[in-house]
Amino acid sequence: MPDTQIARRERLRAQLRETGVDALLVTDLLNIRYLTGFTGSNAALLLHAEDERRTVFCTDGRYTTQSAAEVPDLERVLDRASATALLVHAGERAADYRRIGFESHHVSVEDYEAFAALAGGIELRRAPGLVEGLRLLKDEIEVEALRMACAAADRALADLLEHGGIRPGRTEREVARELEGRMLDHGSSGRSFESIVAAGANSAIPHHRPTEKVLAAGEFVKLDFGATVDGYHSDMTRTVVLGEPAGWQREVYELVYRAQAGGRAAVLPGSDAVEVDKAARQVIDEAGYGEEFSHGLGHGVGLEIHEAPRLAKNGAGTLSVGMTVTVEPGVYLAGRGGVRIEDTLVVRDSAPELLTLSSKELVVV
Amino acid sequence: MPDTQIARRERLRAQLRETGVDALLVTDLLNIRYLTGFTGSNAALLLHAEDERRTVFCTDGRYTTQSAAEVPDLERVLDRASATALLVHAGERAADYRRIGFESHHVSVEDYEAFAALAGGIELRRAPGLVEGLRLLKDEIEVEALRMACAAADRALADLLEHGGIRPGRTEREVARELEGRMLDHGSSGRSFESIVAAGANSAIPHHRPTEKVLAAGEFVKLDFGATVDGYHSDMTRTVVLGEPAGWQREVYELVYRAQAGGRAAVLPGSDAVEVDKAARQVIDEAGYGEEFSHGLGHGVGLEIHEAPRLAKNGAGTLSVGMTVTVEPGVYLAGRGGVRIEDTLVVRDSAPELLTLSSKELVVV
Repeated sequence: MPDTQIARRERLRAQLRETGVDALLVTDLLNIRYLTGFTGSNAALLLHAEDERRTVFCTDGRYTTQSAAEVPDLERVLDRASATALLVHAGERAADYRRIGFESHHVSVEDYEAFAALAGGIELRRAPGLVEGLRLLKDEIEVEALRMACAAADRALADLLEHGGIRPGRTEREVARELEGRMLDHGSSGRSFESIVAAGANSAIPHHRPTEKVLAAGEFVKLDFGATVDGYHSDMTRTVVLGEPAGWQREVYELVYRAQAGGRAAVLPGSDAVEVDKAARQVIDEAGYGEEFSHGLGHGVGLEIHEAPRLAKNGAGTLSVGMTVTVEPGVYLAGRGGVRIEDTLVVRDSAPELLTLSSKELVVV
Repeated sequence: MPDTQIARRERLRAQLRETGVDALLVTDLLNIRYLTGFTGSNAALLLHAEDERRTVFCTDGRYTTQSAAEVPDLERVLDRASATALLVHAGERAADYRRIGFESHHVSVEDYEAFAALAGGIELRRAPGLVEGLRLLKDEIEVEALRMACAAADRALADLLEHGGIRPGRTEREVARELEGRMLDHGSSGRSFESIVAAGANSAIPHHRPTEKVLAAGEFVKLDFGATVDGYHSDMTRTVVLGEPAGWQREVYELVYRAQAGGRAAVLPGSDAVEVDKAARQVIDEAGYGEEFSHGLGHGVGLEIHEAPRLAKNGAGTLSVGMTVTVEPGVYLAGRGGVRIEDTLVVRDSAPELLTLSSKELVVV
């Protein structure tokens, strides 16, 4: 793995040289994980713009062994106050660190005041979003982790269906619990987020938490869930129906299915985030259900469950090869039920690569 | 529940009047949960120092239904950009909001710049840690949630032991997974943190992640885990031995047991955080294992798994009735094995109340 992290740091260094800082103080733990492989709960990284050998990693004594294994290739300082320890380190080598960028979108106002008090002659410069900018485009190691996370979720759902886990008489909570257990069976280190299992009228609530509500014949059951593998999150939604679907259920399902296909087809390099949203939304709008699709179409996914880009009416940005996004339109009829269908996919040259492989046909259980 | 939140807001208002701001812009989600009961993932709260009726809560459209149920008693604005929407709200009522405090220990430098650009004539003032200050002293509703979270962990461990879940031949991961499943059975909504199950030499690593290592006769197995109930976290550690303990195992266990008892006995109102740490540490120091106790004695616990106060050599502050803390000394013999024993407890007048009730005698399985 170190080669991967070395390459990422090299890409960041190229950016730093353009922005005119001598180093970047990285304090966000996910950004540190991305750049070093470290997975502990306290760390900072001072990445020098010119020289890998002047890059210093800091964590505390709890992680002596772990950080030696995960970050074998960087100079290490052990100190509980990791960020300020690295500023002190820089202060002692002032000729190399006249200007240090910091992650101003993560660093709190109070921490900044503490940094400034320590900085002495070093100029601290706001440098927001640099590592997140790199993280937008997933390398193949990241895509592979996302693929495994999506597969764990796919397989868990397949097992759940095969073993009759979704049936009248069970509660939403019981279904959620079994689903999460089955994701662990398939290599997940934990759920990506609190699973949504929403039956009947609850399926019309976009973000519903599983309750003691008992599943009943004739109801939609909406399942929105994901697995985590190597820190990468999958995200998928399927909606099944308990017994023979009513006419309105078929109609709503069919509509969301078509909208989701439209959205996926628009996931191409060069597509505008707003246009991708619109590709799905107009299908629903034209059917007269625009008001019932009350959220954005999707979002980036990776080390965080919600990352850039945001595919929405008020989204921003343009898709590029290597971005990973969800496409998840929904139609929610208050008091009756709702449908959402969601996949995780990778932007590729001519068509997106689906990482979520479960069937999207209406499943009747 | 609203009465509880109303009382908390009233206590905060009294503090705001002392600090001379007209309102506090609360942006940390846990602080918002504490003050309003809202459990969603996007919100802000503008708490007016004088008048509950001028206090405004903001979330976005995904949480229309949920926020109406959880926060029935406050004026509500629906806007995705929750914090800035409330600053705009204040700007339209400039006479009531000449000076607004903000959570400068949470607000990033970039967000602060955005706030300042919107503030117009409003003075923004750093106001770090006010809600956390209230959260230090748990009310009885919070203690009850912590009690249930500790009970879920206690019962899960009892079940695990009773059903032979810790035995030679199983992997650390299998044990962790069963333990977490059993916590869910007993009312946990999810683990408090990634469970530690560490067997043999791994038990000497303070923060070890469960691996495929197979448990073997003669080894220590250290389990550090917790449950979450109503957002409150429990935290406990027990160390068992697989088969008849060796002399050195009895000796180390006995030492940690005595140190933990010493630490607990020092958990009293008025005790200094450093002194509590020392009460346990000196037992281990005197036995000649001071170097092998490489972390602090404990920490506060509540809506976060790690809160103030920190009981450590370099801790700070004084215990008061209603604080909830862990006491968790350990001795780690590299390459051989280690022992940690940890309870969660509440500071009470004459002696702490144990929330973790599992036996601390050496369990031989």
